[in-house]
Amino acid sequence: MNEQPYSPLLNELREAFSPDEFSFDFEKYSKDETQEETHKPSLIVIPKDSKKIKTLIRIATKYNVVITPRGAGTGTTGGALPTHGGICLSFENLSKIIDLDPMNRTIVVEPGVITKTIQTESEKINLFYPPDPASLAICSIGGNVAENAGGPRAIKYGVTGDYVLGLKGYYMNGESFSYGGKVVKDVSGYDLKKLLVGSEGTLAIITEITLRLIPKPIENQLLVIEFKTLKTALKSLALISKHGLRPCSAEFIDKQCIAIAKTLKTPFIGIKNITGYLIYFDFDGDSKKNVSTQAIQCIDLIQQYNPLSSQLINTPLEQENWWSFRRSMSTLLKTYAKSKVSHDIVVPISNLPSTMDAIQNLSTKKITVLGYGHLGDGNIHVNVLNINANESDWKIAITNISEKLFRLALDQAGSLTGEHGIGLTKKRFLSWQFSETDISIMKQIKRAFDPKGLLNPGKIFD
Amino acid sequence: MNEQPYSPLLNELREAFSPDEFSFDFEKYSKDETQEETHKPSLIVIPKDSKKIKTLIRIATKYNVVITPRGAGTGTTGGALPTHGGICLSFENLSKIIDLDPMNRTIVVEPGVITKTIQTESEKINLFYPPDPASLAICSIGGNVAENAGGPRAIKYGVTGDYVLGLKGYYMNGESFSYGGKVVKDVSGYDLKKLLVGSEGTLAIITEITLRLIPKPIENQLLVIEFKTLKTALKSLALISKHGLRPCSAEFIDKQCIAIAKTLKTPFIGIKNITGYLIYFDFDGDSKKNVSTQAIQCIDLIQQYNPLSSQLINTPLEQENWWSFRRSMSTLLKTYAKSKVSHDIVVPISNLPSTMDAIQNLSTKKITVLGYGHLGDGNIHVNVLNINANESDWKIAITNISEKLFRLALDQAGSLTGEHGIGLTKKRFLSWQFSETDISIMKQIKRAFDPKGLLNPGKIFD
Repeated sequence: MNEQPYSPLLNELREAFSPDEFSFDFEKYSKDETQEETHKPSLIVIPKDSKKIKTLIRIATKYNVVITPRGAGTGTTGGALPTHGGICLSFENLSKIIDLDPMNRTIVVEPGVITKTIQTESEKINLFYPPDPASLAICSIGGNVAENAGGPRAIKYGVTGDYVLGLKGYYMNGESFSYGGKVVKDVSGYDLKKLLVGSEGTLAIITEITLRLIPKPIENQLLVIEFKTLKTALKSLALISKHGLRPCSAEFIDKQCIAIAKTLKTPFIGIKNITGYLIYFDFDGDSKKNVSTQAIQCIDLIQQYNPLSSQLINTPLEQENWWSFRRSMSTLLKTYAKSKVSHDIVVPISNLPSTMDAIQNLSTKKITVLGYGHLGDGNIHVNVLNINANESDWKIAITNISEKLFRLALDQAGSLTGEHGIGLTKKRFLSWQFSETDISIMKQIKRAFDPKGLLNPGKIFD
Repeated sequence: MNEQPYSPLLNELREAFSPDEFSFDFEKYSKDETQEETHKPSLIVIPKDSKKIKTLIRIATKYNVVITPRGAGTGTTGGALPTHGGICLSFENLSKIIDLDPMNRTIVVEPGVITKTIQTESEKINLFYPPDPASLAICSIGGNVAENAGGPRAIKYGVTGDYVLGLKGYYMNGESFSYGGKVVKDVSGYDLKKLLVGSEGTLAIITEITLRLIPKPIENQLLVIEFKTLKTALKSLALISKHGLRPCSAEFIDKQCIAIAKTLKTPFIGIKNITGYLIYFDFDGDSKKNVSTQAIQCIDLIQQYNPLSSQLINTPLEQENWWSFRRSMSTLLKTYAKSKVSHDIVVPISNLPSTMDAIQNLSTKKITVLGYGHLGDGNIHVNVLNINANESDWKIAITNISEKLFRLALDQAGSLTGEHGIGLTKKRFLSWQFSETDISIMKQIKRAFDPKGLLNPGKIFD
């Protein structure tokens, strides 16, 4: 670390924070899960007491040093990368569950709590926190709130923001804020809470999150179906919806992904005979009987669309195996390709087939473009795989393909990103989706919260 | 109408709008459901084509005349009242259903569509729009979005904002905007869509709303239970939640309300023997058997809290009778009292009993204060009834009681309003709930959208 320009600031921080609240692991905090982006912070502070953040803000503001909040570093668009140096504020030691309240069906947590922990702790009192981003075992709730993370269960249960009832934290003027609380309905004033959700850590620093929980569905029944085309899969989903069936997940995996998965040394045995589009329909409910009735009704209904195969996946272990396969898709493609870039465009589900066709057409001899993801909500994890292009061709191709892809998403009445955010890597495309006035309003909102521009600058827009 | 200062403006408007797009019913458009508030607009425009709103904005801005958007006039906090005169922009003739899409499970509507119509039309294709404000047969979706309206089903299905996927309309600079669309997930940029929801028509003019629909639950089973105390009702709700039961509504009616209802000429027969707190638990599901199983399990579980009585309400007609009774509560109390003021504070449900006790203690010899509402989400419709106070005592008492009530809501970790908004009548209390910085940020947001302050001024804050 170059201490020179930071030494008076560092001295003040040393007074406020104990030695073990600093880290010098610059390598770790220069990266997240964003490909090919490294940005080194000048200082890494990992507070053990959220109240100290007020002091941190005061000192940073005094020295005009930027603060970049960081959750578990699982973001894929660079939202937590300290592009302007300054202080990396990591929440990993702010990971207390403050309150779990069965009467109000709420959980109050610090931002560093791992998402999976929230689910596990809630389930101990038979309550349920539905959002399930693929990284749930390692990502933290603060990051989920910052990016408004989704997951397969969004089709039935919505996304992170749908569960945020209250937020506490600090403005960049050092004052604390407290929005909402243990109340589901609250229409007092503008909804600053919802504005902070998905703001990618650019508006204010969140230190406490109140989440709504719901009664836990007791049973699940996974149904794995194989369709010849994505169109028939979608027609099936529309048909079962019409009959009142409400899967808690509806996922799809492109047949190209399946083909690649089969080439692995130890491929997942379940896909051995799969040749079409692989569809997951998961049903939840209050009894074994109830969920199996739903699944059987689903199988009956979809027969008119001639599925290539359909299997009821009965035991929790088998279900977990299938879900592991779905969740491992990104890693699996990473292993397969020389390098990989992924995007998460979203389109109306009716446009999924045409969008997927267009995505496939982006492939070249040396570069494969494919997708998998959320049939239920049109959110496609598009993966661009370098099969055998050289570095310079790959770099040019990536820019070219990304541009075509984002244009495609918008042409198909969709959005640049369904779950991952704009962050650093997509900000140059923001003006493709939003008008000048839209962006001007966003910038004025940013200034209202952070007049000096010291909080996570260079994200979403410049 | 005093045409004098408005005549050049009026001339321009006459060129843009046909004669039948003006109204001169100043009495009607000077009021909504807000007690004792009358504010006369200078002009009433009722466009038949939403594109003309661009012209309206241009002309109003040119002459520095304010615009107050108005839905169906069912608001209770004066959000649609033209406190600053100017143009009343009524949406009643913008009431087209633009698109009903079974594949994407969405409905696209103009703001003037009646909420009940959205439900009816969706149900024709077996889809379901859950939000159910008590006024759903007469209120319009534009107003619902502006106030983020709730209703009994919020406990399971959330509020209006949870169903808004897309918004189109015009900024006050005359430019159009389009946020979101037929996509459930969208994390591109700040969530301006969510910011507009509940902004009480103060930020931009909405002309098109895309709503998410869900598969329609096929059956309902209403359960009417009588508890001695509100505490045992809440314990029962917590207990059934713990067992995975998820009522789609959980409502309560205070025993004082029941006593008053009995004094009516033709009281609802169902309440004849009710002496305690009346609780509605409604269960929905995919079959008659499924919902009755839930209801019976509920009855079994709650026996440990000794309900005074419990009844399964089986036929749709009987269910509708009970719901009519619940929905008529406000009108019923209005009939009973000389005059009435109502508020809609919200508290964490664990604080409902203490809050209800404190509410009762606000009663005096001549003024009765009571409440009923949403057990499932802590939203209490507090009614202040003038039993036999004279006008001047009543006016003083109302101010005094309202202040105590809002202080109570905040002391109990709640909010000033769960469903009705701040509007005109609660704006002086906004600073009780929000800090100076909070309000300053809200005002900067207002300025970012509406720099000249011509859109619905004097609402939420001055």
